[in-house]
Amino acid sequence: MTIRLHCFGESGNAYKAALTLELAGIGWEPVFVDFFHGETRGPAFRALNPMGEVPVLVDGDLVLTQSGVIQDYVAEISGRLGAPDAAGRREILRWILFDNHKNSGIAGPVRFNMNFLAPERRSEEVNAFLRARHGAAMRVLDACLAGRDWLVGDGPTIADIANCGYLFYPEPFGFERAAYPNIDAWLGRIAALPGWKHPYDLMPGSPANRAPEGGDA
Amino acid sequence: MTIRLHCFGESGNAYKAALTLELAGIGWEPVFVDFFHGETRGPAFRALNPMGEVPVLVDGDLVLTQSGVIQDYVAEISGRLGAPDAAGRREILRWILFDNHKNSGIAGPVRFNMNFLAPERRSEEVNAFLRARHGAAMRVLDACLAGRDWLVGDGPTIADIANCGYLFYPEPFGFERAAYPNIDAWLGRIAALPGWKHPYDLMPGSPANRAPEGGDA
Repeated sequence: MTIRLHCFGESGNAYKAALTLELAGIGWEPVFVDFFHGETRGPAFRALNPMGEVPVLVDGDLVLTQSGVIQDYVAEISGRLGAPDAAGRREILRWILFDNHKNSGIAGPVRFNMNFLAPERRSEEVNAFLRARHGAAMRVLDACLAGRDWLVGDGPTIADIANCGYLFYPEPFGFERAAYPNIDAWLGRIAALPGWKHPYDLMPGSPANRAPEGGDA
Repeated sequence: MTIRLHCFGESGNAYKAALTLELAGIGWEPVFVDFFHGETRGPAFRALNPMGEVPVLVDGDLVLTQSGVIQDYVAEISGRLGAPDAAGRREILRWILFDNHKNSGIAGPVRFNMNFLAPERRSEEVNAFLRARHGAAMRVLDACLAGRDWLVGDGPTIADIANCGYLFYPEPFGFERAAYPNIDAWLGRIAALPGWKHPYDLMPGSPANRAPEGGDA
């Protein structure tokens, strides 16, 4: 049975899982989640994932949630994009946790707030706080990429795919590639990997498919 | 050589690592990090951890950062607080990622902002946003604890220790145990584990040790 990934194009967290599947060469098919009309808050989705989040991977009887868990599973079953030893696996986990806490964990909300939230509910004070916090994470990421091509070891791993989760999206959220030369070059290397796709080409759903008001999100 | 943990009492992220060591029965000693006088932003600390964060665990030549990586390492070397199979390990990682992203990752900043940030720099708009976001995570955690004693399997694991990281602190940050009966009971079970200690009893440094103005943090 083909692996299914519950996802939607705007979700950088889903993109991490989808891009990992794609670059690992695993066959998969997307199941569109209508986030912008409240699907992740409904009882059917909550029965699938009580955390109320995409992505959700379904492989036969196995249901996995949290992008980092899915990435780890795909690296395991494919033998690709992981690390060959315990030290490498710890370093991958370190960068996935950094991403969840300080990078995607902040980029996601600030991009949502600035682009998809109803204008009357937007707070510039909140968004400035989040942009400053994300900027601090980008300075760490840029510094750690100095003199190296990939975050862990000598090739791309799920650590790289996690940390790029929100960084290819076109909507403004305070991140400018040009301000971070090492990140800019690293994103170029990721986009040059065979099989790489932009999130809106890899998953169903994008702002272009939706009404301008963005539903009830 | 005794394991050292670079930490300070106010850090719930450090508490996760310290409490894991303590409950796993591993000998360790704290190395106080003077966060409130800028130590984590200085070159010596950045050489130890370019991410600029506590906790940092040093075990001989091995240096580990990110609380989840340290927790995973301690579970591995002690054979305690982990899971016996792949499904359990994935479920633990799922809850550690949830914690980093939605629980401690939000509770940490909002508690800092409301209690340790200079009053003239506090933003009620920012803090209300963060409290609402943390509240959503607490509702998920409370729902998932319904009918069960621990997050994964039948006993305490590093998943529980991660998610309680900020929940024992006395400073207000919008979280009230009484509002979440399942979380309340679960925190009671954690605090009843042999060897459990409150963060200010387990690590050096607490608001009681500092000048009221809170340094330059």
